[in-house]
Amino acid sequence: MTYCLAASLKAGLVFAADTRTNAGLDHVNSFRKMHSLVWEGDRVLVLLSAGNLATTQAVVTHLQREAESGGPLSEVRHLSDAADHVGQVSLQVQRKYRAAEDMSAVSLEATFILGGQIGDEPTGAFLIYPQGNFITCSEEQPFLQIGETKYGKPILDRIIEPGLSLEDAARCALVSIDSTMRSNLSVGPPVDLAIYPAGALQRPRMLRYKHNSPYFASVRKHWGEGLRRLFDDLPRFDWEG
Amino acid sequence: MTYCLAASLKAGLVFAADTRTNAGLDHVNSFRKMHSLVWEGDRVLVLLSAGNLATTQAVVTHLQREAESGGPLSEVRHLSDAADHVGQVSLQVQRKYRAAEDMSAVSLEATFILGGQIGDEPTGAFLIYPQGNFITCSEEQPFLQIGETKYGKPILDRIIEPGLSLEDAARCALVSIDSTMRSNLSVGPPVDLAIYPAGALQRPRMLRYKHNSPYFASVRKHWGEGLRRLFDDLPRFDWEG
Repeated sequence: MTYCLAASLKAGLVFAADTRTNAGLDHVNSFRKMHSLVWEGDRVLVLLSAGNLATTQAVVTHLQREAESGGPLSEVRHLSDAADHVGQVSLQVQRKYRAAEDMSAVSLEATFILGGQIGDEPTGAFLIYPQGNFITCSEEQPFLQIGETKYGKPILDRIIEPGLSLEDAARCALVSIDSTMRSNLSVGPPVDLAIYPAGALQRPRMLRYKHNSPYFASVRKHWGEGLRRLFDDLPRFDWEG
Repeated sequence: MTYCLAASLKAGLVFAADTRTNAGLDHVNSFRKMHSLVWEGDRVLVLLSAGNLATTQAVVTHLQREAESGGPLSEVRHLSDAADHVGQVSLQVQRKYRAAEDMSAVSLEATFILGGQIGDEPTGAFLIYPQGNFITCSEEQPFLQIGETKYGKPILDRIIEPGLSLEDAARCALVSIDSTMRSNLSVGPPVDLAIYPAGALQRPRMLRYKHNSPYFASVRKHWGEGLRRLFDDLPRFDWEG
């Protein structure tokens, strides 16, 4: 499995992704699930992927090759058109192998998050389903998740709101991914983080944290110890006196 | 959906369950998912249920009627035999409607947690699958969950260990259920809590909390505000100065 998320804020966008992939428990690897396509001064796109690794790699490779020689992502006027293109490429890849898929128990489905900014348009983020259709964020739901989304959702529900700073959203993403990694073996480090300030139209700040990277380790330690203290300070039942 | 959990500690057992049931979003109700069977001085059993409501209600009713006139649960020597009996009754109920199930998209499956104590045996808890087979807790995994288990698992993973006091485990269960209710509409109050001290062999302490019950509200408020403070105190990225 996988866990990726994107937060869409007034200040810009934050993306985070784990890197563990597995096809059964005896075939565990680490692959990048976060990719960026940047045309400086014109447009910035960040793509997060979950699902069948062959499908997601084929889609990413296709989009990267296209981008080298122009291609739709470098030309579309709106971010939603870019999301639509990613959805269509994903469908194309899935269709190619559908006959074989029908004969096996393996699902070739893939889900993506595409976020970024095109020219003067506001920043935005889309969740692209295996069917190729997509949804975007809202004020009430300023984040999107794909993969193993449930373990890390409570902290996002509590903290992420559109007025949050990029750094706070990035810290929240790290806590959300850490909680998921603790509870589910299929999500693992290193963790990729991308921070894009609205209007920059240049490569986002990209960070990669291993389990013992000083900043990530420090956030995890503070959070874990703080939670324990917070728990110990909770009000007592009346019979505890 | 549903969210129920049981913690198996040296000090005894803690059970918690929400009460929301839904068959589609337009048919939401509140039903008790926690039931206890007590033969004072001899044995105490607590049953938590998740899955198809008709199946779980039929199983609970069957077990309660049986218990009124003796029946296997009042006679078995080991808790694992009680778990086996619950599994067999569950299978019986599911089989009765299987022909109809095959013609519809509805699953009649149900999952149970059975915990308690029989005579001089140690306390214990079992998770009973829809297939009727079951697993128990271990030192490394001193809690069991059924239903919407993922949202509330991270806090259990951090806090629950065999040496914990019953009250701490009960508070942790309330926090775990609160986090789940915030993130998933299919889990809702009131929340049932049962606390059974090892060796008591009498009715567990049973508590029911509505959303605004003073103790539950106070735990939720402390936890929510504390998390926010804890989050705000996390170490800064190096460029934040």
